[in-house]
Amino acid sequence: MRVEKPEALRKPLIIPHKTLMGAGPSNCTPRILHALSQPVLGHLHTETTKIMDEVKAGIQYIFQTRNELTLAVSASGHGGMETVMCNLLEPGEKVLVATNGIWGERASNMAERYGSVPVKVTTEPGNNFSLAQLEMALMKHKPVMLFIVQGESSTGVYQPLEGLGDLCHRFNCLLAVDTVASLGGVPVLADEWGIDAIYTGTQKVLGAPPGITPISFSDRAKQKIFNRKTEIQVFYWDMKILGDYWACFGNPRVYHHTISTTLLYGLREALAMVAEEGIQSVIERHENCARLLREGLEKLGLQLYVSDASKRLPTITTVKVPHGVQWKDVTNYAMNRFLVEIAGGLGPTANKVFRIGLMGYNASPEKVEYVLRVMQESVEMAKKMKPSKL
Amino acid sequence: MRVEKPEALRKPLIIPHKTLMGAGPSNCTPRILHALSQPVLGHLHTETTKIMDEVKAGIQYIFQTRNELTLAVSASGHGGMETVMCNLLEPGEKVLVATNGIWGERASNMAERYGSVPVKVTTEPGNNFSLAQLEMALMKHKPVMLFIVQGESSTGVYQPLEGLGDLCHRFNCLLAVDTVASLGGVPVLADEWGIDAIYTGTQKVLGAPPGITPISFSDRAKQKIFNRKTEIQVFYWDMKILGDYWACFGNPRVYHHTISTTLLYGLREALAMVAEEGIQSVIERHENCARLLREGLEKLGLQLYVSDASKRLPTITTVKVPHGVQWKDVTNYAMNRFLVEIAGGLGPTANKVFRIGLMGYNASPEKVEYVLRVMQESVEMAKKMKPSKL
Repeated sequence: MRVEKPEALRKPLIIPHKTLMGAGPSNCTPRILHALSQPVLGHLHTETTKIMDEVKAGIQYIFQTRNELTLAVSASGHGGMETVMCNLLEPGEKVLVATNGIWGERASNMAERYGSVPVKVTTEPGNNFSLAQLEMALMKHKPVMLFIVQGESSTGVYQPLEGLGDLCHRFNCLLAVDTVASLGGVPVLADEWGIDAIYTGTQKVLGAPPGITPISFSDRAKQKIFNRKTEIQVFYWDMKILGDYWACFGNPRVYHHTISTTLLYGLREALAMVAEEGIQSVIERHENCARLLREGLEKLGLQLYVSDASKRLPTITTVKVPHGVQWKDVTNYAMNRFLVEIAGGLGPTANKVFRIGLMGYNASPEKVEYVLRVMQESVEMAKKMKPSKL
Repeated sequence: MRVEKPEALRKPLIIPHKTLMGAGPSNCTPRILHALSQPVLGHLHTETTKIMDEVKAGIQYIFQTRNELTLAVSASGHGGMETVMCNLLEPGEKVLVATNGIWGERASNMAERYGSVPVKVTTEPGNNFSLAQLEMALMKHKPVMLFIVQGESSTGVYQPLEGLGDLCHRFNCLLAVDTVASLGGVPVLADEWGIDAIYTGTQKVLGAPPGITPISFSDRAKQKIFNRKTEIQVFYWDMKILGDYWACFGNPRVYHHTISTTLLYGLREALAMVAEEGIQSVIERHENCARLLREGLEKLGLQLYVSDASKRLPTITTVKVPHGVQWKDVTNYAMNRFLVEIAGGLGPTANKVFRIGLMGYNASPEKVEYVLRVMQESVEMAKKMKPSKL
């Protein structure tokens, strides 16, 4: 053999037990980690399809939807975003992308690749969109779809969605919503709010591993998918055939791809835990913890990045980097000394903020106290460091 | 809340311990299952990127390649196939697809979605392609790429690849090879054979869970990717940016998507186990087990589907369904009585064959004996059943 065995693979796999309080992933509960180690099953075994049905019902519950076309895509959250773009947009069609952080940029990039025409409505990072502003943009651009992010994780901004579905539908426009960083931290009422396409991440509030992405399409969206003039370009994300694998259209299941039962087990347990606690209680727990965190941070003399309290996301809190402190010194200290992950900024907030995630397993008063102590010590230590240390 | 908690999620998750001897997935070893339950890490944590480097080196080893652009795509094997198509084909370009089973059909479907033009060279199911036949087709069609499957899992046919790279390159054509069902059961020498794009499955010989797919591109393929006239349509599979996340081009790592560290741990351990045993020994073990299985099946009076012994795949053995037996009675009995999965046919072999997989953890003489006993009893029982039982 010409290519020798890699030496590095001879060492054992050792994974540290960190506390993940950045922008995600968050920690899985022991119950979910245990589920991941269960034996793999075939992609069409009776037990697998039963779990798929349970996962579908759990996703309908967390999205508060009765959409038939509800399933989980075998890819990370980015795959969810791309699934929306390639199913609901045809070449040449206009999509309005609400952009106030990194996710709008990413969505525009994806839409463009499929030959559609993204137009942006923007507001400054740290702010969200008013219905009036979105109405103006819809009127001006006449898009076939509006894409908007409920929780912009790069800035820690919450976007209210009430009334937006009706508004879009008046303009004959579909409403697509990214709830990757928000679901479970704020209410999501997909049917009541008239959302036509919605997806979320497994590795945030749900606390399951990434790699599988809950997604749901309204009947209005389904009509669009089944009446396209052009074929959906990605086989892997073609809802017309993937929907049959997930038994969404009343037809017999058809093999589409080999689903990862491992990730399905994790997601199933995550959904079961949310159902046991109740989605409303989960949301309240996140809101309470976020309040405690904000109060604690302000007591430490730190400033929140989102000035308007009503626009703050409970799941990810953005904190301004204090003057005279290198953000990387803080996050490095927290990681090295405590194995605690605090994230830096991203996109428009790069170098400007810390991002502290309180999601799922980590959204507890004890963890809030812990991360406040970690922040206090880490910022103090960073203040003492010479800038040259960077 | 309008959508109530699903009752089914209140029950505990109970996964049976089956013996998976169908066409895949195969069973994971206890070491791999244990790795899956390790804590999730962030997608750019030091430990994560170190494991990504180890996984990359392990993939280079199993493919026997020094290709820089070697990584794992965060999707099932179908994602690997689609990654090849959307990176290496531009709209209007011709791809020659060698078709003697289901995978060629699937590849053509994918290629067509991206606007390229698939043309087929075919041979009957149960047979493979000669160099001469492929040369004729290359001469006739002048494609930019030839796509061929080394192990056609629907028929149990092995496709030799020696000499094919040189042949393709003489026609200024790239060679793309699917080794999902073959790698680890037969030799794969990507560099020596001049393969330009290659991918495999994790859930077959490697015995890790599905959901992450090893893939590698030659420098010739990389040239094509970086000199495309049109943009790669799928963000998720765009090797130009995904390659940077995997540090394939010497640039700093850039966030592309949230990789599933869970699946990464499983793949890492699977590659480590192959490296410990040695890829050559793994291949010999599979060849020996396949020989024992074929001998045993013939002793039971069963007939192999692939008549030419040199064309039989060691990993998946196809067996003709005996006269007077309903195949489903046999596989149902094996599953219900022994929790053993035997697969039926697929595509051209539907209703005609059983497919018995000996892959990874299950490729042992003990398992061969076991599956032979299971087959014997299941076929006997099926013979006694009235056809009306179906």
